[in-house]
Amino acid sequence: MASYPDLPIAVSLGDPAGIGPEVIAKCWDHRSEFGLVPFVAIGDPRSIESVWDGPIAAIDDPRDAATAFDVGLPLIQLLAPEADLPGQPSVAGAHCSLDCLEIAVGLARSGSAAAVVTGPVAKEQLYSIGFAHPGQTEFVAERCGISAANVAMMLAGPTLRTVPVTTHLPIAQVPARLTTSLIESRARATLRGLQRNFGIAEPRLAIAALNPHAGEGGSLGTEEIDVIEPAIAALAAEGWRVTGPHPGDTMFHASARCAYDAALCMYHDQALIPIKALHFEDAVNITLGLPIVRTSPDHGTAFRLAGLDRADPRPMASALRMAAQCAAFRSDSA
Amino acid sequence: MASYPDLPIAVSLGDPAGIGPEVIAKCWDHRSEFGLVPFVAIGDPRSIESVWDGPIAAIDDPRDAATAFDVGLPLIQLLAPEADLPGQPSVAGAHCSLDCLEIAVGLARSGSAAAVVTGPVAKEQLYSIGFAHPGQTEFVAERCGISAANVAMMLAGPTLRTVPVTTHLPIAQVPARLTTSLIESRARATLRGLQRNFGIAEPRLAIAALNPHAGEGGSLGTEEIDVIEPAIAALAAEGWRVTGPHPGDTMFHASARCAYDAALCMYHDQALIPIKALHFEDAVNITLGLPIVRTSPDHGTAFRLAGLDRADPRPMASALRMAAQCAAFRSDSA
Repeated sequence: MASYPDLPIAVSLGDPAGIGPEVIAKCWDHRSEFGLVPFVAIGDPRSIESVWDGPIAAIDDPRDAATAFDVGLPLIQLLAPEADLPGQPSVAGAHCSLDCLEIAVGLARSGSAAAVVTGPVAKEQLYSIGFAHPGQTEFVAERCGISAANVAMMLAGPTLRTVPVTTHLPIAQVPARLTTSLIESRARATLRGLQRNFGIAEPRLAIAALNPHAGEGGSLGTEEIDVIEPAIAALAAEGWRVTGPHPGDTMFHASARCAYDAALCMYHDQALIPIKALHFEDAVNITLGLPIVRTSPDHGTAFRLAGLDRADPRPMASALRMAAQCAAFRSDSA
Repeated sequence: MASYPDLPIAVSLGDPAGIGPEVIAKCWDHRSEFGLVPFVAIGDPRSIESVWDGPIAAIDDPRDAATAFDVGLPLIQLLAPEADLPGQPSVAGAHCSLDCLEIAVGLARSGSAAAVVTGPVAKEQLYSIGFAHPGQTEFVAERCGISAANVAMMLAGPTLRTVPVTTHLPIAQVPARLTTSLIESRARATLRGLQRNFGIAEPRLAIAALNPHAGEGGSLGTEEIDVIEPAIAALAAEGWRVTGPHPGDTMFHASARCAYDAALCMYHDQALIPIKALHFEDAVNITLGLPIVRTSPDHGTAFRLAGLDRADPRPMASALRMAAQCAAFRSDSA
């Protein structure tokens, strides 16, 4: 598979009525300042033109992106039946965002793009048109032929990387959903992902407890003893460098973070509270366990901000930079 | 009630085999550098002498603490039947730590001390001698004649204050324990505590959701709709400035923190992960809803560090400073 720097990064614009088009266009504006390598956007040019005055360089072949990148925002055009207004999502826009995603993933899968970065989509709109995946992560996994249990959603910032074992679940359902095998699967996806995408030969994984004080020997919950410790023992027996279960509240300060390359957390907020408290502007969502590199900025469509020229492009820039770095690590080790 | 600066702060040494005696003695060493007002320790002098070479100024009356503070560490002596070695807790030491706590609280209750700061105790040891409270917070509440539901445990750092509604519970039991009335009680204790202890006339309280994405309209859990929103409505109807339920992961970055004076969290780790990620060295535990000021450093006995001269006194210094500040706010508004 060809790779960065020969190939551009494919970026889906996400929902045309959201802030995706604006932040991607602003990334092109600031491409030197942000340290970005060539990328090609995929989506409806009208969603960009309605929020940005810069030049668009329409292309058909991703191989033209590197040259086009000097003169305008490279764009593979995909026209929705009608153009959305910023901040006013529609069913047509949802279809368009899904088509963009499909094409961006396809370009990476086929070796025509070095990586894929996905712009923010509106899940409710997607559900209304029959999208049957919890989110883009699971969709990308399926298109890559990987079971959702074997991929991991990592949130990566400059001083912390976290991975939730369970994601979009009510807290009341978390204890029952946590199984030793699920923890092991996510841990392996994370550990291999640290090797492949971040070039860490012997990654260290800190595994969080579910309960306060790591269950305090069973008096504050038994999931540590029954579910988490057996997973840690199995992973250690395979030779992985894993520790835990660690009490959630004492894992995330500066000196604790030095002891591991990623933290495996038991539920959504346990993983996302610390990463967003510490790295709100520059945390990147990266899917581990895929045959391709896929990142996304860790924010949503922000419809209320769309069209106001107020969206911050830095999270998208961080996602583009990390995609390039991970693609380079994979290329080096290929 | 007399108050700071006339009266000293009463500090219980905590478990004599833990790091409490060491960090309190080090605070006296660095009293100028740390900006500390006079305090009086309560405990066994042998637990200090075994880890510290400085001068102890034994006193009987807290009113002598301010004068004694210039010549030595003021100490109201309380001898255990036998002296513990550092790092080797005993039943006798547990009794001693409980007696120290009782006296320190009594001094604050009787108006002989401006506030109480509690050193770290070993809960398992205390349970073994019949201590029937989950922790020191509930003990202090009972001694003050306040129901445990009407006090709130606040973790306060330089840029964030959090309060958990539920504390030492397995995650699996949290959803069932969360009730509208418990959330309201903790919120009122927090709001009044911000007024009394921090001098904030119209405090702003951000109330967290339980589930990811605040339940996403019910699809990721219904506790927001059924339990949390009614509490917020009732508090708002009383005139309090409350907002929420906020998704846990987007409450704790710098710009979000500017919008509130304290965050009310639904469970232990939701409150403690962000405060410790951001303010591990200087987060203070303060009990709100009491007739007295009570703070403590947010660390345990750390038996494995005891006697090695490696314990960091800064958390204890932060607890002493905050106790003095809160006592001053109360004095000003009395």
